[in-house]
Amino acid sequence: MTSEPIAITALETPVPVIDLDVVGRNLSRMQAYADSHGLALRPHIKTHKLPRFAQAQVELGAVGITCQKLGEAEVMADAGLDDILISYPLIGPDKARRLAALARRATMRAAIDNPLALETVALAGQEAGRPIGVLVEFDSGMKRTGVTSVQEALALIAQVKAADGLRFDGLMTYPSSAATAEFVRAVKEAGVALPMVSGGGTPRAAYAHEIEGVTEMRVGTYIYNDRTLVELGAAGLGDCALHVHATVISRPTESRAILDCGSKTLSSDLIPRGASAGYGLLIDYPDAVIERLSEEHGMVDLSGCAVKPALGERVRILPNHVCVVTNLHNEVVVSRNGLVEGIWPVAARGLTR
Amino acid sequence: MTSEPIAITALETPVPVIDLDVVGRNLSRMQAYADSHGLALRPHIKTHKLPRFAQAQVELGAVGITCQKLGEAEVMADAGLDDILISYPLIGPDKARRLAALARRATMRAAIDNPLALETVALAGQEAGRPIGVLVEFDSGMKRTGVTSVQEALALIAQVKAADGLRFDGLMTYPSSAATAEFVRAVKEAGVALPMVSGGGTPRAAYAHEIEGVTEMRVGTYIYNDRTLVELGAAGLGDCALHVHATVISRPTESRAILDCGSKTLSSDLIPRGASAGYGLLIDYPDAVIERLSEEHGMVDLSGCAVKPALGERVRILPNHVCVVTNLHNEVVVSRNGLVEGIWPVAARGLTR
Repeated sequence: MTSEPIAITALETPVPVIDLDVVGRNLSRMQAYADSHGLALRPHIKTHKLPRFAQAQVELGAVGITCQKLGEAEVMADAGLDDILISYPLIGPDKARRLAALARRATMRAAIDNPLALETVALAGQEAGRPIGVLVEFDSGMKRTGVTSVQEALALIAQVKAADGLRFDGLMTYPSSAATAEFVRAVKEAGVALPMVSGGGTPRAAYAHEIEGVTEMRVGTYIYNDRTLVELGAAGLGDCALHVHATVISRPTESRAILDCGSKTLSSDLIPRGASAGYGLLIDYPDAVIERLSEEHGMVDLSGCAVKPALGERVRILPNHVCVVTNLHNEVVVSRNGLVEGIWPVAARGLTR
Repeated sequence: MTSEPIAITALETPVPVIDLDVVGRNLSRMQAYADSHGLALRPHIKTHKLPRFAQAQVELGAVGITCQKLGEAEVMADAGLDDILISYPLIGPDKARRLAALARRATMRAAIDNPLALETVALAGQEAGRPIGVLVEFDSGMKRTGVTSVQEALALIAQVKAADGLRFDGLMTYPSSAATAEFVRAVKEAGVALPMVSGGGTPRAAYAHEIEGVTEMRVGTYIYNDRTLVELGAAGLGDCALHVHATVISRPTESRAILDCGSKTLSSDLIPRGASAGYGLLIDYPDAVIERLSEEHGMVDLSGCAVKPALGERVRILPNHVCVVTNLHNEVVVSRNGLVEGIWPVAARGLTR
């Protein structure tokens, strides 16, 4: 922070710039939605990886936070965050030791979908001397982690209940879908009480209350939104809080511009199953296509543009997938009304373990 | 470094592990090739981003190093590296100021392909009080940066020679190709002396001496190699120095395994135009396909595997594109004979400016 205000258009590029007013609106809107439907909100911090935004989410009413890796949870616990769900199977003695250390200073929960993950979390609970809450993850259509049958879920639930060091808290899935309601109903019909059913996903977040049985929303991307969510109709361009500012560093031909941002800045993520091509949206040149990326070069096809950006011009890019962009940058600029308010280290970036 | 040797198989996953013996062989082989053909070798540090490996490359005979961004060059200059080429158009007063600061303490060169980049480098040379060497970049088929005609090159060369603060050093392109030799010949025939002609690219590095006129090789990936180079026939599996060690954290179905590494660990880069599917090669299960990635999950299709990895098993992955993997990790483990020799911070990672 400086006393002299700096315009975000004066920052050296490439640089990710976050609009705090848009963030504020996005956070309040989601919390209001969750509150109005009696749903608990447990934001996924993977999108921002910033303790300050996690604290803001909790201050607005979030019941806790979601982290995928222990490294992220350690950063958040260091910053005083509490009630942390690790939405990810943890396996092995190293993970147990770290989870135990976390459980000594924060309320920890973990999702499991197999007996080895159960053993790991149980070991942590025993080491910590206080039980760790367990959610059994089931697959609602993502074909990722999660048990694939009610029978498996019931068997794991029985093991959780029998294990020393664990407390059965309920179920978890991603994303929330029609299959979610069906699965939850079947588990309840088998006589299992479910204090928590944690669903997730920003794209369908506005319909979370329609999924019977879900008690909690795990959403991450809503804080910034991105081109994928705009494409899916889940956000408008004005709801997008993070843009990458870049510079046209070369105009080799009439129809080609090169930007100073490549896959190290934007990531190689495309829009999943989307109609829109390219590696991001040039806000002021929507007909331009970022057609290829090298690590530091963004190759833009301008052949569809009536007006074309000039050599040396600054442009703003809406990333396809904002969570992976956050992970690429050591720091982000936060701004309000076009002025820099601070430069924040992305404290939980790059923590894959 | 510890006194008690640690097996790389005991490291917490996911973790990138580098074999120093393979690195040593790769570095020596490329230097011997360059020496035997009278070519200068100027390794691109983007692949490793480690000052120690840059120093090793120079000790073996490299004439200097290549960096794409000033931030990388600053880290390398801090570590004592000299003769640094920024193979990238720099534009604007911030870049000029930083380049000038570098030029006061190291021999700097920069590639340009347009008048604004020329102005920026000239300003830096004037500020530093010593001329900066300039290479004019031309496009040899990549359709990225680089002038696209001999006429443009000649015009820029004339401007470089006339500018205060600059010294014309020659030409640069990526990659070296048949078009390279043709372009260089045309510039020479126009009466321009070319002290340096810098070509590049690991995939065709073994044929660099066949490209008439090229005096210098800019290559990066050869230090580690990766699945793309194996696919292209430019490296064998035994020449690959970096593997990501991961753990099977879920086996939801008979034919699906989930690894604890996703796009935050492996990147989303696929094999360019390659026949091989997936986001990396499972060394011990070559018939498995890493078919999808979330940020922290790697979804593996095992349906083609006679023997399948078990829940909790450790696996080794050869990344599709090793340079972007390096950029994702705060540190790498270096090893020899399966034992950890050190954990090195990736000093120049994430430096996009």
